[in-house]
Amino acid sequence: MNNIFMNKCDLLFDFYELSQANGFLANGIDETVAWFDMFYRPAPEIGGFCIMAGVHQLTEYIKNLSFSEDDLKYLSEKGLSDDFIEYLRNFRFTCDMWAVPEGTPVFANEPVIKVRGPVIQAQLLETIILLSVNHQSLIATKANRIVRSAGGRAIIEFGSRRAHGIAAALNGARSAYIGGCCATTNVSASKLYNIPLFGSMSHTWIQMFDSEYEAFCAFAKQYPDDCVLLIDTYDAMDKGLPNAIKAFNDVLAPLGKRPKGVRIDSGDLAYLSKKIRRVLNEAGYPDCDIYASNSLDEYIIRDMLQNGARIDNFLVGERLITSASNPVMAGVYKLSAIEKGGEIIPKIKISENVAKITTPCPKLLWRLFDNETGKAIADVLTTSDEDLSSCKEYELFDPDYTWKKKTVSDFVARQLLVEIFKDGKLVYDFPSTENIRNYCAEQIDTLWEEVVRFEYPHNYYVDLSQKLWNIKQKMIDSCFNN
Amino acid sequence: MNNIFMNKCDLLFDFYELSQANGFLANGIDETVAWFDMFYRPAPEIGGFCIMAGVHQLTEYIKNLSFSEDDLKYLSEKGLSDDFIEYLRNFRFTCDMWAVPEGTPVFANEPVIKVRGPVIQAQLLETIILLSVNHQSLIATKANRIVRSAGGRAIIEFGSRRAHGIAAALNGARSAYIGGCCATTNVSASKLYNIPLFGSMSHTWIQMFDSEYEAFCAFAKQYPDDCVLLIDTYDAMDKGLPNAIKAFNDVLAPLGKRPKGVRIDSGDLAYLSKKIRRVLNEAGYPDCDIYASNSLDEYIIRDMLQNGARIDNFLVGERLITSASNPVMAGVYKLSAIEKGGEIIPKIKISENVAKITTPCPKLLWRLFDNETGKAIADVLTTSDEDLSSCKEYELFDPDYTWKKKTVSDFVARQLLVEIFKDGKLVYDFPSTENIRNYCAEQIDTLWEEVVRFEYPHNYYVDLSQKLWNIKQKMIDSCFNN
Repeated sequence: MNNIFMNKCDLLFDFYELSQANGFLANGIDETVAWFDMFYRPAPEIGGFCIMAGVHQLTEYIKNLSFSEDDLKYLSEKGLSDDFIEYLRNFRFTCDMWAVPEGTPVFANEPVIKVRGPVIQAQLLETIILLSVNHQSLIATKANRIVRSAGGRAIIEFGSRRAHGIAAALNGARSAYIGGCCATTNVSASKLYNIPLFGSMSHTWIQMFDSEYEAFCAFAKQYPDDCVLLIDTYDAMDKGLPNAIKAFNDVLAPLGKRPKGVRIDSGDLAYLSKKIRRVLNEAGYPDCDIYASNSLDEYIIRDMLQNGARIDNFLVGERLITSASNPVMAGVYKLSAIEKGGEIIPKIKISENVAKITTPCPKLLWRLFDNETGKAIADVLTTSDEDLSSCKEYELFDPDYTWKKKTVSDFVARQLLVEIFKDGKLVYDFPSTENIRNYCAEQIDTLWEEVVRFEYPHNYYVDLSQKLWNIKQKMIDSCFNN
Repeated sequence: MNNIFMNKCDLLFDFYELSQANGFLANGIDETVAWFDMFYRPAPEIGGFCIMAGVHQLTEYIKNLSFSEDDLKYLSEKGLSDDFIEYLRNFRFTCDMWAVPEGTPVFANEPVIKVRGPVIQAQLLETIILLSVNHQSLIATKANRIVRSAGGRAIIEFGSRRAHGIAAALNGARSAYIGGCCATTNVSASKLYNIPLFGSMSHTWIQMFDSEYEAFCAFAKQYPDDCVLLIDTYDAMDKGLPNAIKAFNDVLAPLGKRPKGVRIDSGDLAYLSKKIRRVLNEAGYPDCDIYASNSLDEYIIRDMLQNGARIDNFLVGERLITSASNPVMAGVYKLSAIEKGGEIIPKIKISENVAKITTPCPKLLWRLFDNETGKAIADVLTTSDEDLSSCKEYELFDPDYTWKKKTVSDFVARQLLVEIFKDGKLVYDFPSTENIRNYCAEQIDTLWEEVVRFEYPHNYYVDLSQKLWNIKQKMIDSCFNN
């Protein structure tokens, strides 16, 4: 297998990560302990929240991070010092890392990954953390939206051919499954991640036979238990559907088998599905499902179901696997503090764009669940020494509009970040993909409907503790008054 | 290195490719010779044409296609026959394949990949062909648009952190370079494909020092020949720029070095760049470049340059690496003919959606270049036995509006498809990535400005020969009259 596809790729860095690490070493601050947060910035096009994903691959990558002599030779030619090359040759990962578990709904501006360790190491993780989590969370989120639009009907992921490369197809299929899809058509993803596999037929099958009817009969004979016929190669209503019913009658009925479905891939799917449903029912096949595909997404599915479409299974490809309505998850990885002589020194990045100002300090991320309804009330970021778990009452306030306050009680506060690496050692057991998918569905249920609405969702509270807010405000003031 | 990232992935199929191949074998038509075309459907959001890319990776994949015992066991559990599993165990690729060389501008509805071979094999290539060419052509096309918007200024690709997985980052960087970017920040892509590497600094570097000035001095000392300072961590005009100039004066000047640039990543880039230019010039640094980044694309760059922005180098990330304005290239792979007893039998797919009707027959793709201007006049699809290379005069006509005719003369007709595999053997020498990039720029120059315009470009002619049009029309008529 070829290297270009294998992506055995330990140099997955933006060059400045290496050149800065090289500089940290030269300036004797390589071992300074640094704290980083990954968080995402608001992405209104895909709603108010994201489904966390990508942690598993990220972890595998970090576990195996090392530098070949060939890599080191290349880096040496790029002007990095001999000392740094030697450092990389003996590279050993010793950081701590926390992450919000895959499948958890998360909101903008809260840390979903947190890293603590020597800055020379923590700096090197930036690209791989962002690349894994940005991509996979994006797809899980989009998939979840599409799944919710279908009101319990099945969504099958079949986007490989429009995915952005092999990794996007495979990790995309996994993320789509976490988000709630019920199957993938990608054989490799199915095998790797134990995702149910779906296959139907393409127009080529029909065209390889002298007639559509013969093609249908041959398929029904070959796959009597799994017979979904694509009926729109020539004309769905006038040719495809009658031929399919004839093949069901002529081939499946004598075997005592029932057809699984018919699929349409063109025309007005809502309109056709209603006509097809009637014809199938009249022909004695009320149990034969209708499958539909053709550039679907959550908006089209929602609208077609409002039109009374009789589609049972949606095959969703390009707009899911690329998150076409918004293909960018704008996650960033920012320094929040350094340690000096045992003391934690918070760090902030100010910006002309107010939304780009970061929140300083190592943080804890709490989600408050209402004891009565089980619903999530708010997320709160605190400093590391604050503990909300035994709080009886808590005053929330909006970090931008601080006069907006609300006191909550009768809740349980749960920390969302769990430890993945401790001193560089993997300490987390990853659940199966199926368990992550189930957990995701449960967690979505803890959000109010208004929060998960597709358009203009209710703004879920992500607040700062008073202590954290004070530190941040003081640092902003001091920057602008100097 | 972990398998999940390695993507050693010989099962990169949509399941129906395998289940149909299994069915072809069972029906004794597995060795029937089939012809397939890959072509893309119109993508108005990214303009009138695409830059072909992805052939190299596709070829590597096919060359190495094989099935492990573990794969075969998995497939066996999915209901494929023992005969078929045995066929896969001994799989040997024997197809012919032609492709339009990477870097060539191509238009909708023309075959950019053509495959001829036993249908059982040709069918298996669908997903990998579409995935490679769709993704990489998309990014090369988007990159080319962005490069053209900058009027000769440098575009540096730095999108890895927002790419859809590792393969998207690596192959995306390669495609961006083919499309005309001058460098990448991705170290692995630079090494793999010999692309110039660019690195600057991040806000973390600044934050790791006690002051911005100290951070700048440390960087200038470390990289005196390659000193690009990021000036917007606290306040670009009031803090960052004065500190940068002071560091240039204090550290670089005594060494006899000139600064390479300053970078801004927030605020109004056009406005700031004009102010920064004035200050740098007054400080004696008219040769210090201005670099800018922050969610750029061809539209923003064009508009900023119209505003008189004084930016010399654009770092373009997320909107390039995901082709954010249109992240889907809608390429398809369709049967065009089969061979029976030495005779070629054309195949067509009819559809409710007229745009989805295919053009039958194995085809040649010709591009006609005007001898006087060197510009491309039109592309013409012909049957395999037509030869336009010695034509003195040719009558073009629009395949949809056939009364629109035009006779051209004084041209040279060049075939665009070149042979990649012959009887399964690789017969093509791939040029270096740099040569592909140069070839791409040359080929773009053969298109009229009106054709490469970003919005509502002139419709370039992709016509059918009279013979091919007649065959297609006859097949459509016969389908609708049966």
